[in-house]
Amino acid sequence: MSFATAMTILYALELLGTAFFAASGTIVANEKSKPDWFGATFIGFITAIGGGSLRDVLLGSYPLSWVADPNLIYVIIFGIVFTSIFYNPLTRMRRTLFIFDSIGIAMFTILGTEKALMYHVAPPIAAIMGMFTAVMGGVMRDVLTNETPVIFRKEIYATACLAGATVYLLLLYMHVNRDAAIAICVTIVFLIRYVAVKFRLSLPHFKSTIK
Amino acid sequence: MSFATAMTILYALELLGTAFFAASGTIVANEKSKPDWFGATFIGFITAIGGGSLRDVLLGSYPLSWVADPNLIYVIIFGIVFTSIFYNPLTRMRRTLFIFDSIGIAMFTILGTEKALMYHVAPPIAAIMGMFTAVMGGVMRDVLTNETPVIFRKEIYATACLAGATVYLLLLYMHVNRDAAIAICVTIVFLIRYVAVKFRLSLPHFKSTIK
Amino acid sequence: MSFATAMTILYALELLGTAFFAASGTIVANEKSKPDWFGATFIGFITAIGGGSLRDVLLGSYPLSWVADPNLIYVIIFGIVFTSIFYNPLTRMRRTLFIFDSIGIAMFTILGTEKALMYHVAPPIAAIMGMFTAVMGGVMRDVLTNETPVIFRKEIYATACLAGATVYLLLLYMHVNRDAAIAICVTIVFLIRYVAVKFRLSLPHFKSTIK
Repeated sequence: MSFATAMTILYALELLGTAFFAASGTIVANEKSKPDWFGATFIGFITAIGGGSLRDVLLGSYPLSWVADPNLIYVIIFGIVFTSIFYNPLTRMRRTLFIFDSIGIAMFTILGTEKALMYHVAPPIAAIMGMFTAVMGGVMRDVLTNETPVIFRKEIYATACLAGATVYLLLLYMHVNRDAAIAICVTIVFLIRYVAVKFRLSLPHFKSTIK
Repeated sequence: MSFATAMTILYALELLGTAFFAASGTIVANEKSKPDWFGATFIGFITAIGGGSLRDVLLGSYPLSWVADPNLIYVIIFGIVFTSIFYNPLTRMRRTLFIFDSIGIAMFTILGTEKALMYHVAPPIAAIMGMFTAVMGGVMRDVLTNETPVIFRKEIYATACLAGATVYLLLLYMHVNRDAAIAICVTIVFLIRYVAVKFRLSLPHFKSTIK
Repeated sequence: MSFATAMTILYALELLGTAFFAASGTIVANEKSKPDWFGATFIGFITAIGGGSLRDVLLGSYPLSWVADPNLIYVIIFGIVFTSIFYNPLTRMRRTLFIFDSIGIAMFTILGTEKALMYHVAPPIAAIMGMFTAVMGGVMRDVLTNETPVIFRKEIYATACLAGATVYLLLLYMHVNRDAAIAICVTIVFLIRYVAVKFRLSLPHFKSTIK
C-alpha cells in the first residue's frame, strides 16, 4: 500500500469516526434532555470534536484539525441530519451501534496515540492522549447535559482504550507492521468492550479493594 | 473614519462588552446559587472572558487578550462592583438588560468572527468561533454553577449569533462596507432575539421533527 | 544555595504537591460518587494536573509540564496507590490532611505565579494564574463528579491563594529575597485557611452586602 493510499484511508476513517460520534452524541443527548435542533447539533458537534480538540490543545498542535478542515464540520452535519431522518430505526439497532462505537473509540485511540507520538512524548503520555481522544468528547457531552460522565458509570470503557493504546505502543516498539498493530489494537478494544458488556463486568470499586 | 479611530472604537466596545458580561454573569449566578463575594466575582470573570479565551485557545491565538491586557480585568472588576451597588435597580430593568445583552452577544459575535478570519479559517469555522465568543462564557458559568447550560434552555440564543455571523460573512464576501456589515449584523441578532422572546418562539425539538 | 539546588528543591516540591493533589482528589471523589478504580485514578489525575494545565494553555506555555515529563504521571499513580493502601488511616487524619492541603495550594500558587511572570504578564494576571494553578484542578474534579465547585462552598479557599499571590508579588517587587518571599507566602495562605476554618469564617454573600 502506498503512503498516499494509507493517508487517504486514515483520513476517510477520521471523517467516518467523526460523523459517527456526532450521531451517537446526538442520540445520547436526545435521550437525556430534550434538546431543540440547535442543542442537539451543538452536543453532537462537541462529542465529535471535543476529544481531538482537547488532545491538540494539550499538545499545542495547531491548527486544530476541524479548524483547518471544514470537511469535518460537513460530516458532523451529515451525521446529525442522518440521525434525525433515521432516528427510530437507528435507536433500535443497539447491537450495530455498539459495534460501531467500539470500533470508533478504537480508531480514535489510535489516531490520538499517533498524533501524540509525532510530538515525541513518552509512551504513557501517548496512551493517555489516545484515550482522551476517544472518550473526552463524550465526557464533555455529559458535563454539558449535567450527567455524571459516562466513564464513571459505564462498563469498562476508557480502560479499554488505555489497554488498546498500550498494546499498540508495545507492538510499534517491537517493530510490528503498523497495519497489523492497528488491526490488533482495534480487536483488543472491541473484545474488552464486548466481554465487559456481555458479562456485565466492571472494574472493582476504588475503596472496596482496600479494606 | 481613520483606522486608528476604528481600532479605538472596537477596543472601547470590547471593554464595554466585557464589563457588561461580567455584570450579567454575576446577576445570573447570584439568582441561582448564593455565592459569596469571591464566587460572584469568579463567575462574573469566567462569563466575561470564557468565550474569548476558548476561541483564542482553539485558534492558537497567543497571548490571550485578557492575559496581555489587564484593562480587561479592571473593567470586569468595575462591572461587578457596579452590579453590587446597583443590584436591585439593575435586576428590575429586565427590558434594558435584554437590550444590552442582545447587543452584547452581537458585538462579541462580530469580534470573534473577525479574530477567526485573521487566522484564515473557512467561513463556517469563523461563524462557529463568533458564536463561541458570544455564548461559551455563559455556558461555562452554567456548568460551574451546575445549571443546564443556557443555550439548551433559552429561546433562540446561540442560533441568533450563528445567523448574525453568517450574514456578516456574506456581507463581507459581497464587499459591503465593514461598518454597514456590523450595523446589519447587530440588527439581525437583536431582531431574532426580540421576536423569539416576544412570541416565545423556540427551535423545534430534535426528535419531534422526525416522526 | 546554588541555582541547581534551588531548581532541584522546586522540582521536588512540584512532584510532592502533584502526588498530594492526586491523593486528595481521589479521596474527595471517593466520598461523593463511588468511582471504580479507573474513575478514581482519572479524577485524581485531573485534580493533580488540571490547574497547571489550564494555566499553561492560557499562557501558551508548551509543552505542558506533565506532557513533557512522565515523572509527574508516576507520582500521580504513586499518590493514588498510596491512598488506596492507607485509605482508612488517611481519611482519619483530617488535621494532617488540612495542613498538607494548605501548604499544597500555597506551593502551587507560587509555582503558578512564577510561571506566569516568565511570560511577562501584569501582576494581577500573574496572581490569577497562581490561584488558577492551585484551585482549578479541584474545580474540574467537582464539575466532573457533578458537584458544586469547592470554591463556591468552602471557607475562604481561592481567596487565600489570591491573597498569598498578591503578597508574594509585592515582596518580589520590593526586592525581598525569593526564599523569604516563598516562606511568607506559604505562611499567609496557611494562616488565612487556618483562621477561616477555625472560626468558620467565610466571605460575605454577594447580595447581602448591598441592600
